[in-house]
Amino acid sequence: MAIITFTSDLGLKDYYVSAVKGAIYSQLPNAQIIDISHLISTHNLLEAAYIVKNAYINFPKGSIHIISVKAEADTTSSYVIVKADGHYFIGTDNGLFSLMFNEFPEKVIQLNTVGKFFTFPSRDVFAKAACFLADGGNIDNMGSPKTELLQRIAFKASLINDLIKGVFIYFDSFGNAVTNIDKNLFELGTKGRNFEILFNNYKITRISKGYFEAREGDVLALFNASGHLEIAMNQGNVFELCGIRLNSSITINIL
Amino acid sequence: MAIITFTSDLGLKDYYVSAVKGAIYSQLPNAQIIDISHLISTHNLLEAAYIVKNAYINFPKGSIHIISVKAEADTTSSYVIVKADGHYFIGTDNGLFSLMFNEFPEKVIQLNTVGKFFTFPSRDVFAKAACFLADGGNIDNMGSPKTELLQRIAFKASLINDLIKGVFIYFDSFGNAVTNIDKNLFELGTKGRNFEILFNNYKITRISKGYFEAREGDVLALFNASGHLEIAMNQGNVFELCGIRLNSSITINIL
Amino acid sequence: MAIITFTSDLGLKDYYVSAVKGAIYSQLPNAQIIDISHLISTHNLLEAAYIVKNAYINFPKGSIHIISVKAEADTTSSYVIVKADGHYFIGTDNGLFSLMFNEFPEKVIQLNTVGKFFTFPSRDVFAKAACFLADGGNIDNMGSPKTELLQRIAFKASLINDLIKGVFIYFDSFGNAVTNIDKNLFELGTKGRNFEILFNNYKITRISKGYFEAREGDVLALFNASGHLEIAMNQGNVFELCGIRLNSSITINIL
Repeated sequence: MAIITFTSDLGLKDYYVSAVKGAIYSQLPNAQIIDISHLISTHNLLEAAYIVKNAYINFPKGSIHIISVKAEADTTSSYVIVKADGHYFIGTDNGLFSLMFNEFPEKVIQLNTVGKFFTFPSRDVFAKAACFLADGGNIDNMGSPKTELLQRIAFKASLINDLIKGVFIYFDSFGNAVTNIDKNLFELGTKGRNFEILFNNYKITRISKGYFEAREGDVLALFNASGHLEIAMNQGNVFELCGIRLNSSITINIL
Repeated sequence: MAIITFTSDLGLKDYYVSAVKGAIYSQLPNAQIIDISHLISTHNLLEAAYIVKNAYINFPKGSIHIISVKAEADTTSSYVIVKADGHYFIGTDNGLFSLMFNEFPEKVIQLNTVGKFFTFPSRDVFAKAACFLADGGNIDNMGSPKTELLQRIAFKASLINDLIKGVFIYFDSFGNAVTNIDKNLFELGTKGRNFEILFNNYKITRISKGYFEAREGDVLALFNASGHLEIAMNQGNVFELCGIRLNSSITINIL
Repeated sequence: MAIITFTSDLGLKDYYVSAVKGAIYSQLPNAQIIDISHLISTHNLLEAAYIVKNAYINFPKGSIHIISVKAEADTTSSYVIVKADGHYFIGTDNGLFSLMFNEFPEKVIQLNTVGKFFTFPSRDVFAKAACFLADGGNIDNMGSPKTELLQRIAFKASLINDLIKGVFIYFDSFGNAVTNIDKNLFELGTKGRNFEILFNNYKITRISKGYFEAREGDVLALFNASGHLEIAMNQGNVFELCGIRLNSSITINIL
């Protein structure tokens, strides 16, 4: 049976997360539910997109990913199931999916919830949809196809005239600062030439292989496990110590 | 095999929660253990009762719920297994069960732990009891019936002469403030008439269908997923912004 | 199939923990993964050793324990699998295992990762090793034996001339202060005689059976569920209120 993962901003204290799981087990006693994170900052779609994008690829194809962040559908949003990259994603069409996928997904189905209203959609809509699918149900029977998804714009890193411009998009719990510059863009731009990575008043001129390469407290740059350029300290909190903020800029000057 | 859920104030950092799970898997390798919450405030029975009450109903009948909050039995308390609403609850008779159930449960059995003392009852008593039951054991063989449970008084909401009086009983991680006034009492009192919901210096005159109905920052009232009247802000923390405190009062004036 | 437990300093917000689980389920769809803790303080080997030591003993023999704390191997460390006490432990030879075991373990195998570098070893090395082993693989085929482990010194409690000297090694989430003095050493030293337990400006002259024995707010000493002498308050935070710090000393004067 397909694995069901669960990502939310519901937190770990309240009964909410367990209620969703209970609803799944009540329908599908042998379900396998794996938590991705329930500590997404409240309503933060950028964080949710970053975390789910980097988590889901580690799961088997065919896995079903429930994402409940800013989940309540208002008059401008709807509940959808998205098929992309061999995986299924269930959530609210609130812009999240436009932040997760560069291209329009293989399939988007608007879930049939006509005329009903839900204050707890992850329990009352998503759990049911996940069970239907995990139990072998056909996505095409779950609602009607959608050809548009709500668009949220996120800054994309750019390469123009030997200058790569990006921004900081995420700080992990170690205090590492992740940028939206990925390894492909970096290699396309530098082609083996020297470079200066510039942010705040810092300059870094090499890419480290691992966190251990700096002496404790030194700032370094590396490509992290998800291929993003990351500014890190060996055993320090770059976020606190370098004064980097979300969306503050980082540039790479190719020499 | 019956699902075992686990609720505690043991926290997520220490080895305690995993020790209880290890004890269960050691006896019952195929057990299915679902966490409800381990972030109940230390020794807070009101919180535990609110969370378990709203969580357990989502699980299949026959599920077994371990509750370890203020669990150490002293000379005035004992370890019990409670059967109610088709579910089993294992914990300490410290007042928790009187806060969870309005009526005396279908069955209460005092677990046989005569002459023994436990500093870690969830591992050394509850895990064993849960395994016995999940493995098909009969509750009647687990100890002797009890006809009384320790009583803890919680304020109940009241309806007198067109006035509903309640208190705030829980703040969730979104900053929503939950009251002890439920939808039944509200409808019994208002019978479709107009009303004013009053707390601190706020007045609300309608019930919203969902959080989205308010503009960001506005305060609204709605019945939450568990049927309690809740004061919420669309994307704001009503607890912080309105100065509501636990047990502070809320009244509904029926016009 | 053997249970796989997982302990780390990866936190509960990021995608890291779920990535490791995804990697395991991708290889071994029926794996059973139990979290011990992911809230180990960053790079804190002492904490990790204390928590894993007290957790693993509750799991069935043959269980596999992934420990990812300060996991990135630098030029002085390597990835190992340790067999001890009928259990398997997978982690980095960074001193952790010297803190966990008093004697050199039954078997230590250095994992074959020659010439490769990993920024995310728990996903890219440990998950794979755990699956190999859980699936019935032979530890001897996983790499080459090692006869040394990196040594980290932790203060051991001592008994000299009717004086037991120890230190505080851990504070749990209840605010209990755990010492490195265990019940065996205490009984060896006291042999039923009277004693004074001294720390900061406190003196305690008896061992309590449980937390309930003190009136609320009183400080007491007891042997906790893992056999360590612990200073606790009934429903209070001894760490905050008594000014105890990590590694601050505690002595028992045997009268």
